[in-house]
Amino acid sequence: MISEKMVSLVQNSSVIRAMFEEGRELANIYGEENVFDFSIGNPSVEPPIEVKEAIIDIITNDSPNLVHGYMNNSGYEDVREVVAKHINNTHGTTFVGENIVMTVGAAGGLNVIFKALLNKDDEVIVFAPYFGEYRNYVSNYDGVLVEISPNTVDFQPNLDEFKKKITIKTKAVIVNTPNNPTGVVYSEETICKLASILEEKQKEFGTSIYLISDEPYRELVYDGVEVPYLTKYYKNTVVGYSYSKSLSLPGERIGYLVLPSEMDDFLNVSAAVNVANRILGYVNAPSLMQRVVARCIDAKVDVEIYNRNREELYNNLTAFGYHCIKPQGAFYLFIEALGGDDFAFANAAKKHNILIVPGTSFGCPGYCRIAYCVDYSKVTGALAGFEKLVKEYQ
Amino acid sequence: MISEKMVSLVQNSSVIRAMFEEGRELANIYGEENVFDFSIGNPSVEPPIEVKEAIIDIITNDSPNLVHGYMNNSGYEDVREVVAKHINNTHGTTFVGENIVMTVGAAGGLNVIFKALLNKDDEVIVFAPYFGEYRNYVSNYDGVLVEISPNTVDFQPNLDEFKKKITIKTKAVIVNTPNNPTGVVYSEETICKLASILEEKQKEFGTSIYLISDEPYRELVYDGVEVPYLTKYYKNTVVGYSYSKSLSLPGERIGYLVLPSEMDDFLNVSAAVNVANRILGYVNAPSLMQRVVARCIDAKVDVEIYNRNREELYNNLTAFGYHCIKPQGAFYLFIEALGGDDFAFANAAKKHNILIVPGTSFGCPGYCRIAYCVDYSKVTGALAGFEKLVKEYQ
Repeated sequence: MISEKMVSLVQNSSVIRAMFEEGRELANIYGEENVFDFSIGNPSVEPPIEVKEAIIDIITNDSPNLVHGYMNNSGYEDVREVVAKHINNTHGTTFVGENIVMTVGAAGGLNVIFKALLNKDDEVIVFAPYFGEYRNYVSNYDGVLVEISPNTVDFQPNLDEFKKKITIKTKAVIVNTPNNPTGVVYSEETICKLASILEEKQKEFGTSIYLISDEPYRELVYDGVEVPYLTKYYKNTVVGYSYSKSLSLPGERIGYLVLPSEMDDFLNVSAAVNVANRILGYVNAPSLMQRVVARCIDAKVDVEIYNRNREELYNNLTAFGYHCIKPQGAFYLFIEALGGDDFAFANAAKKHNILIVPGTSFGCPGYCRIAYCVDYSKVTGALAGFEKLVKEYQ
Repeated sequence: MISEKMVSLVQNSSVIRAMFEEGRELANIYGEENVFDFSIGNPSVEPPIEVKEAIIDIITNDSPNLVHGYMNNSGYEDVREVVAKHINNTHGTTFVGENIVMTVGAAGGLNVIFKALLNKDDEVIVFAPYFGEYRNYVSNYDGVLVEISPNTVDFQPNLDEFKKKITIKTKAVIVNTPNNPTGVVYSEETICKLASILEEKQKEFGTSIYLISDEPYRELVYDGVEVPYLTKYYKNTVVGYSYSKSLSLPGERIGYLVLPSEMDDFLNVSAAVNVANRILGYVNAPSLMQRVVARCIDAKVDVEIYNRNREELYNNLTAFGYHCIKPQGAFYLFIEALGGDDFAFANAAKKHNILIVPGTSFGCPGYCRIAYCVDYSKVTGALAGFEKLVKEYQ
């Protein structure tokens, strides 16, 4: 009885569910402490204390009808101003409240911008490896996902292939840096080249191509790496941000879109985003959490906790003989699957109670993703299994 | 540059925005206290004290990674159990947690169920007058809205026309009782007839027709009126509920869907709803608010405050000579437009600084909606203007 479009999605989802159930079963057999689940990007680091303080302060002192009431579909005006100023202070931009739309996380923001922009069969380009949900977000609005094959040398985007695959139907390009699943940050050089290709192709086709920068991992960077702010390189940029990782609030569904005034057709795009936020049923981003993130605008989770996991895993796995790029951000390590078959390797890992995700899910077969947003004890506990795996494959 | 589908929506939204701006202007000219804005259904009654207590208790005592973390896309299992038990206790049903899906308000719930069910050109029947957003929710998934014309005698649904308009393409029927904009509660007799028509047509066409009961106003009823619980009358019922009005939390976006186990294709529908919740970008209903509503499961706003507004308005307006049904629920009064033209009448009211919404927005020209979820002082303050209006039209 369900929608035809949903049939295969439901089937896929039961595959993922089966994986999850298998993990639960392993935990039942071997004990929770002996199962090493690196499959899900659910932050393990606690929100900064400012979040708790802000919630209690707001609930104790502010008017409940203001805190829990409706506001403009794009969010509270004062919250949007605070967010704009914070971006300006951090990145030297010149946004105002009207450039910010509060959204139900980054996933809500991406759905809203695609609803606003896409006509049937419009093309949206992604660089493999990429977050698999992009496929669904684009298909929700009958867009066509166009994949650029992975550059497995350094996981910077393959710009030669990119240039060739832009067509008159290309409406948007998604970049995700720091990247899920590789942890790679796209360099300023990459961004400049990518922007100049987009400029050239916009001229060639007489179209507007929007660069959608999905940035839930922006604050999770290591070794002082800089993540370029893309609106400064290309005017048709839309930034999608989320507090899911930066404040460890993934369940609260709070984030925002940045729509720069200088983008093509700004007034219509921002009006369309406002309407899309409403009619897709979000209505507005959760109200209390809007006020909370504005109060905690300078707060951030303790990235050092993820960094310790990163160093421990990277140093040991490479010493065991695994191949991977050292991640500069996010909380993922993307390793070459031993034996070359990512599904077979993920299954072999499961025999050591290690759960990892085949790279095929990210458009990059032959690799597996390790989500190290887990307790340090899980990282150290899994090392013996990872070492045994290498020996099995020798 | 925006999607073709969005162009007219953006135009409509600027009309509404213009109305809103006009209201702001009136307030600037005549003073906030002299403008009587009955245009928006934004609750004025404060949330019950239990909400504040629950938030502070949860934030103070529970694990932040549990409170703010990801959970199953359908919601926390313990919260779903609490909701199921509450419905059972109140309505004598036999639901379990698996029958409940926590959603981003009722608007999120309706989008999710339509995404799960609708193929292009599937028909969804609504009874005029109806909440105008249904048109957008159905059109988001390329469904076709089929309107049943209003029965202006008592605003119970016109079941003769309903029976004629059901086709082999009818996938769903929306009912909204207590109703926005009339405040009418569909009687048990109505529900029984409606259910038996649906049963008959399902047999005739060999199809499943889902009855979607949108119930954000269920708790707001007056004079001890009973609102039948529709799953008890028709097995292919999906209930969409929201805490926006019952707990005055509209900005928080928290509600749920009820999917009874006995509905046709239950396993696929509930799996599809779970996936739709995820891929539409909600991911899950806001996590803290899920836990809050579970703690406040027996709490309710003080309905007597709305009742006082209802009595004051209804008694005075009818004494002035206005015609309307006395609402049994919700916080709306649906009056016959003096002179017969709802737009002209709403404009005439505006000259007395009274803002009301033309019934055409609800598929029912010739009427206007008064949202009395306002301060009592606004109700009493507007009476003189309403009285003058009658004299102008005599």
